[in-house]
Amino acid sequence: MIKFGVIGYGYWGPNLVRNLFETPQTEVVAVSDMRVERLKQVASRYPTVEVTTDFRDLLDNPDIDAIAIATPVHTHYDLALKALQAGKHVIVEKPMTSTSEQGLRLIDEATRRNLTLLVDHTFVYTSAVREIKDIVEAGKLGNVYYYDSTRVNLGLFQHDVDVLWDLAVHDLAIMDYILPDSPCAVAATGINHVKGGTENLAYLTMFFEENVIAHVNVNWLSPVKIRRTLIGGSKQMIVYDDMEPSEKVKIYDKGITLGEDKDNLYKALVGYRSGDMFAPHLDVSEALKVELQHFVDCVETGAEPITGGRAGLQVVRLLESASYSMKHRGKLVELAPDGLCAGVA
Amino acid sequence: MIKFGVIGYGYWGPNLVRNLFETPQTEVVAVSDMRVERLKQVASRYPTVEVTTDFRDLLDNPDIDAIAIATPVHTHYDLALKALQAGKHVIVEKPMTSTSEQGLRLIDEATRRNLTLLVDHTFVYTSAVREIKDIVEAGKLGNVYYYDSTRVNLGLFQHDVDVLWDLAVHDLAIMDYILPDSPCAVAATGINHVKGGTENLAYLTMFFEENVIAHVNVNWLSPVKIRRTLIGGSKQMIVYDDMEPSEKVKIYDKGITLGEDKDNLYKALVGYRSGDMFAPHLDVSEALKVELQHFVDCVETGAEPITGGRAGLQVVRLLESASYSMKHRGKLVELAPDGLCAGVA
Amino acid sequence: MIKFGVIGYGYWGPNLVRNLFETPQTEVVAVSDMRVERLKQVASRYPTVEVTTDFRDLLDNPDIDAIAIATPVHTHYDLALKALQAGKHVIVEKPMTSTSEQGLRLIDEATRRNLTLLVDHTFVYTSAVREIKDIVEAGKLGNVYYYDSTRVNLGLFQHDVDVLWDLAVHDLAIMDYILPDSPCAVAATGINHVKGGTENLAYLTMFFEENVIAHVNVNWLSPVKIRRTLIGGSKQMIVYDDMEPSEKVKIYDKGITLGEDKDNLYKALVGYRSGDMFAPHLDVSEALKVELQHFVDCVETGAEPITGGRAGLQVVRLLESASYSMKHRGKLVELAPDGLCAGVA
Amino acid sequence: MIKFGVIGYGYWGPNLVRNLFETPQTEVVAVSDMRVERLKQVASRYPTVEVTTDFRDLLDNPDIDAIAIATPVHTHYDLALKALQAGKHVIVEKPMTSTSEQGLRLIDEATRRNLTLLVDHTFVYTSAVREIKDIVEAGKLGNVYYYDSTRVNLGLFQHDVDVLWDLAVHDLAIMDYILPDSPCAVAATGINHVKGGTENLAYLTMFFEENVIAHVNVNWLSPVKIRRTLIGGSKQMIVYDDMEPSEKVKIYDKGITLGEDKDNLYKALVGYRSGDMFAPHLDVSEALKVELQHFVDCVETGAEPITGGRAGLQVVRLLESASYSMKHRGKLVELAPDGLCAGVA
Repeated sequence: MIKFGVIGYGYWGPNLVRNLFETPQTEVVAVSDMRVERLKQVASRYPTVEVTTDFRDLLDNPDIDAIAIATPVHTHYDLALKALQAGKHVIVEKPMTSTSEQGLRLIDEATRRNLTLLVDHTFVYTSAVREIKDIVEAGKLGNVYYYDSTRVNLGLFQHDVDVLWDLAVHDLAIMDYILPDSPCAVAATGINHVKGGTENLAYLTMFFEENVIAHVNVNWLSPVKIRRTLIGGSKQMIVYDDMEPSEKVKIYDKGITLGEDKDNLYKALVGYRSGDMFAPHLDVSEALKVELQHFVDCVETGAEPITGGRAGLQVVRLLESASYSMKHRGKLVELAPDGLCAGVA
Repeated sequence: MIKFGVIGYGYWGPNLVRNLFETPQTEVVAVSDMRVERLKQVASRYPTVEVTTDFRDLLDNPDIDAIAIATPVHTHYDLALKALQAGKHVIVEKPMTSTSEQGLRLIDEATRRNLTLLVDHTFVYTSAVREIKDIVEAGKLGNVYYYDSTRVNLGLFQHDVDVLWDLAVHDLAIMDYILPDSPCAVAATGINHVKGGTENLAYLTMFFEENVIAHVNVNWLSPVKIRRTLIGGSKQMIVYDDMEPSEKVKIYDKGITLGEDKDNLYKALVGYRSGDMFAPHLDVSEALKVELQHFVDCVETGAEPITGGRAGLQVVRLLESASYSMKHRGKLVELAPDGLCAGVA
Repeated sequence: MIKFGVIGYGYWGPNLVRNLFETPQTEVVAVSDMRVERLKQVASRYPTVEVTTDFRDLLDNPDIDAIAIATPVHTHYDLALKALQAGKHVIVEKPMTSTSEQGLRLIDEATRRNLTLLVDHTFVYTSAVREIKDIVEAGKLGNVYYYDSTRVNLGLFQHDVDVLWDLAVHDLAIMDYILPDSPCAVAATGINHVKGGTENLAYLTMFFEENVIAHVNVNWLSPVKIRRTLIGGSKQMIVYDDMEPSEKVKIYDKGITLGEDKDNLYKALVGYRSGDMFAPHLDVSEALKVELQHFVDCVETGAEPITGGRAGLQVVRLLESASYSMKHRGKLVELAPDGLCAGVA
Repeated sequence: MIKFGVIGYGYWGPNLVRNLFETPQTEVVAVSDMRVERLKQVASRYPTVEVTTDFRDLLDNPDIDAIAIATPVHTHYDLALKALQAGKHVIVEKPMTSTSEQGLRLIDEATRRNLTLLVDHTFVYTSAVREIKDIVEAGKLGNVYYYDSTRVNLGLFQHDVDVLWDLAVHDLAIMDYILPDSPCAVAATGINHVKGGTENLAYLTMFFEENVIAHVNVNWLSPVKIRRTLIGGSKQMIVYDDMEPSEKVKIYDKGITLGEDKDNLYKALVGYRSGDMFAPHLDVSEALKVELQHFVDCVETGAEPITGGRAGLQVVRLLESASYSMKHRGKLVELAPDGLCAGVA
């Protein structure tokens, strides 16, 4: 049984608490939030849970084994670091930190203390994304050609992060999980429509060493909610639509076939293939439950979580570069040593 | 009655011929194509139409008033120029030419000879796009914030143009028609998955002097066909989905409202509005018929077509800049004098 | 503050308890269920709530003002009657009882004791159905021509009721709420695919005194979930699709117009009208919350609930007749005195 | 080469003529229509085709081998009979005739004269319906449980037939093709909203000797177009949605599994299965082309067409019974000798 303290009971905190309650190996000891009215909600729903406005009460509590952090991004680093220093395992909301330097520091702290650090990249634990990973790993797509995601809606304008850090973070986490390689360069464009605000609409292109491209379209100001990812491959292609109630993942036996004969005209070498579509049955287990179960396993075995510090840092690095590029109107930011990024001239 | 010669009977030519037949003020005198088997199809369907493998027969025919050109892009300039020089009015497939220099030359030729030059930006003549123009012009969207289009499918890989020239051209033509301003800078990224081919997948961002952004996602290698454009404004927002059988244009009374009080916190200034949706009835007239009627009117009155040389050139200029940017991994290409592009640092 | 005892903690009970917790004027004192494992769930989730395997403990508890019954249909009558006799107000799951005779008896008991009896016709309290009622009442549809509903999915095969009592009950409750008149005759067909089971697929036609028809298609054995109702009128028509995430109610300005001139041929008299579509914004309040608030109001004022005994009885009467007709392969069952059902020869 | 005369150039005639032109083994010699303006259209589009207002010119023309009849239903019998008597092969629009007696007479005439008689049940020749037939015949659905179709839109109000004869005819033709058995009893309800008109909305239930049911919902007064058929089986289930641009046929590995042990409780015997979904690739050949090719083959070989007189008669028989039942408010009409219709008490 792992006993939790939860810091932050805003949007995501209630989901964490509910799932911690429903997971057999976890228990919620205490919740902290600076807003008294939020704590009242905790008290009325979960009379057995201690509440406090001071997160340090949780760190000081020897009954607590692990801290879950569901607070604004700019507080992640400080809270997670203090929790690790207090000897607690940590689950921290995405993105892990505001800078990659902070991320490195957290990884170091967790490693030295043999503590589990898990970043809440929730989508990685959905049955849809796990199915996609299986398909990609099994080679069913052939060579992956592209990852193209649209993640837009009329969303809450965040104050401390731009839309990339709020929404594109999901795609970066998914890509880190399902793709064999990491981007070697990024270019982003975006716009801010609110005086004094951050970019509320952004487009992020990522280049890879192989002939692969990724693109993410994120927008807080869309009239409709779209959550759709196309993943193209040389053999098959995937449409992952998270708004579909049941058939979220569809695999299309479609594409082009390229001829081998180098002497033929270009024209003759491209053939088109249009075949069947297949939508695998997905189980309906809640992602957060699967994630908490994974956290429990990692605490017990000492294994690095799938979405541990390494994954969290990789995502923060890409976000840092993307925001920098966006500030400079799409200026290319290379992440790999010169010349290794084949797609980049 | 305007008598036509049609050059090119491949994919688009048959649509042109059929619509020219069904338009009361137009007539088809002759069709040319280098492929004899295509001409056989013309002959069996339209026994009264002359056929020839030499387009010059059409230019030399004094019975012919106008030439419609439906051939590969790299031939547009030469054919259109020769047609104008032969004193014929011209309808030319989109994009008008391969370079903006060629475009300027055609405009010049048409102007000097008082001939009508119309570029076949078909979407501009659909009831959906005309409805959108009316909505935007009437100020119903308030300030336009963005234009965001996805135009992907498993499409024919073109040989002489990249995917921007094949698909993004539609969005550039629509934007030229419905938006009050033109882009002042562009940045594009893309990839080519076929050895010896052109980019088959591309992302194009366009910046404006006002706080507006536009983005177009085009792809020849998508497992599903998507034709969806979001147009965001300060008052209302549009979703234009050309795949919908009837409700192609939906207007959402959704958005954010920004407070006026400068002293308040940022947080207090953003409010959310979620209201009704409205889908205007659209007539079902075929766009090409409307376009041909407009061409007839312009020939008769000497008026510049909505999609005349100016519009055709504007689109080619953007495509040129976009392809250049794409070759240079998203390098910003400014189209206006320095400092005028507000969105660009 | 109204204090509740809840009988039955199976599928619907947890929703009731959660909403009773979240409604300021209601409180849950105790829950009964014959299954100890269900009570354990109550105890872990709501430690302050008393649990018991004997529902009589709830009836005997003087702290309890109202009983909510969420048990199988065949137990509704007995439990509701005993609750009323114990002086408790009652909320009972739909359908109210197994027979109309039982329904009459409950109404009588509640009336004599001045107790509130509400049948949980949940859909009536959704913002979608309330919007539809407003539209119909305001005369926007003109004359209502038909109500046509499809309510199918791979659903739990019930043991004590057929699919009409499980699914068509929702449409009968909605029709009772939104239509000005009641059916005067019914005819139903259906089939049972499981030996020893009840009909799992049924089609119910209802005739009205005016020139109106209603039809409900219900099915426990559909591969896809469909919840769609068409309501046709002389002026406008509604599509109500409960599977749509946001635009659940769409109003179409479509239909036919009938000429007045009696001498003209029939042909000339039918004109077609195809106009705009409008989807009103719907608030997202949970129906059960609205229903509980309404129950509280009725208890306080003594008013008859919208879905009180009268509505509950009307629905049971139609179900009785429909099941009878279904057993007799669509035999017409008249509910009004002879000759009053205009649609019936 | 089979030379055709086409009688009737209204809605369907132009499709017939176009497809006859595009089929290599067929040719159009002449078209008749009583409306001169329709004939003008033929002349301008197909200058080589003879036109006449008198269909007898076609029957008398010795150059003509086959007659295609695309006229109102009440004229089918007379025209088809005269055409057969003139020694011509016949394609006749659906439904074949107005009465089953007429249908028998046509079959007799065609048989005696060794002429091919094909009823234009177009849907039978679509790749979607042929795929469904293959699936059903291969036993992939297991035992067929039901066929449930919705075929509604704002359609042309017909003058000489009710909505069953106009729309349900498609489903009866499809069922005749794909199901191993025929209905043994029918019950229909419907309504007419136009004074002096025919039923414009109808519901048709069909019973079978096996434990199968079929239902068709047809409506000329729907605000939206729906063309969806569910086919349920013991192993798998099909959703056939003709409005889908590409994935028209989806096969769901979903359903219930029934236990064998007779001693167990009913409850224990029903299990639920929710598996993958599969959408086979369908070719895009136009149904009418496939049908004309089949007609050519039948003329050459003397084989009975898939949708020959037998199929045409079967559909007319069901329509006759259905309209009779509808006039009598769903009165059951048995088509088989007493006692053979297992589903009917």
